[in-house]
Amino acid sequence: MTPFVRLARPEADADCDAIGQLLHDFNVEFDAPTPPPASLAARLRTLMKTGETVVLLGHVTDTGPPIGLSVFRFRPDIWSEDDECYVAELYVVPDQRSRGLGRALMEETMAVARRRGANRIELGTEETDVQARKLYESLGFLNREGGPEGPLMYFYEREL
Amino acid sequence: MTPFVRLARPEADADCDAIGQLLHDFNVEFDAPTPPPASLAARLRTLMKTGETVVLLGHVTDTGPPIGLSVFRFRPDIWSEDDECYVAELYVVPDQRSRGLGRALMEETMAVARRRGANRIELGTEETDVQARKLYESLGFLNREGGPEGPLMYFYEREL
Repeated sequence: MTPFVRLARPEADADCDAIGQLLHDFNVEFDAPTPPPASLAARLRTLMKTGETVVLLGHVTDTGPPIGLSVFRFRPDIWSEDDECYVAELYVVPDQRSRGLGRALMEETMAVARRRGANRIELGTEETDVQARKLYESLGFLNREGGPEGPLMYFYEREL
Repeated sequence: MTPFVRLARPEADADCDAIGQLLHDFNVEFDAPTPPPASLAARLRTLMKTGETVVLLGHVTDTGPPIGLSVFRFRPDIWSEDDECYVAELYVVPDQRSRGLGRALMEETMAVARRRGANRIELGTEETDVQARKLYESLGFLNREGGPEGPLMYFYEREL
């Protein structure tokens, strides 16, 4: 069947539990340190309640659990009265990839961001994450400033 | 004299006006479309009042106007109860560059972020912005995932 995507509800325990489990599995898969699923469920419940963070859950069957998610966040734009959107996490469980769920999650993320009045959407990703980069680029994301001929844009970070 | 840096106060008209002018000049220098200085002053006043956005102003004389700024923002971290910090803008007027003000602004930005309880700081920049990248790298920022040998991290965006 066609993958489908829906908004997670902070008041739904099952949604929060699924988010906690998926974010935990994401960290484990990529060898990142991770809080336990229950902590992540509680944290995302808190963040969703404020409206600053939105989570979409993705399914491939009507009755099965969510097997992918998009976590995205909003902040007021500096240059206008609009918001801007930042995609923090996009994840689909390994054995369900390449079936269009990542694309469905990203398309709905952009649709939700537009409805919310965001004028821009951004994200960071690694050069080696080729599948994700192809997806983002096919959706019109660019890692070059000002157009396809512009300089590359790097994402820098450090711990504090 | 040694450059110095101080927190901008949203209730100080002169600070908001200086921020609006510097952000306007920044856009003009880089051929970006820009709102007028007064609109930017009003917008940043609003954002600073919420505490989500912090602005540092940089000076090179005790009596002169600010000639550089750092605009940075906070959001709750997903993985912990801490905040994370995002540097939105760093600017020093052209004829005052290479005198240490950019470094002073970034060092104080990191200090403010630490005091606020942020565990991480991030920013995006272009490959051609060599001076800025040198500064960030000298301050411990990395555009590679997991360490100096890791894959490059790209910043992607699109308008909505």
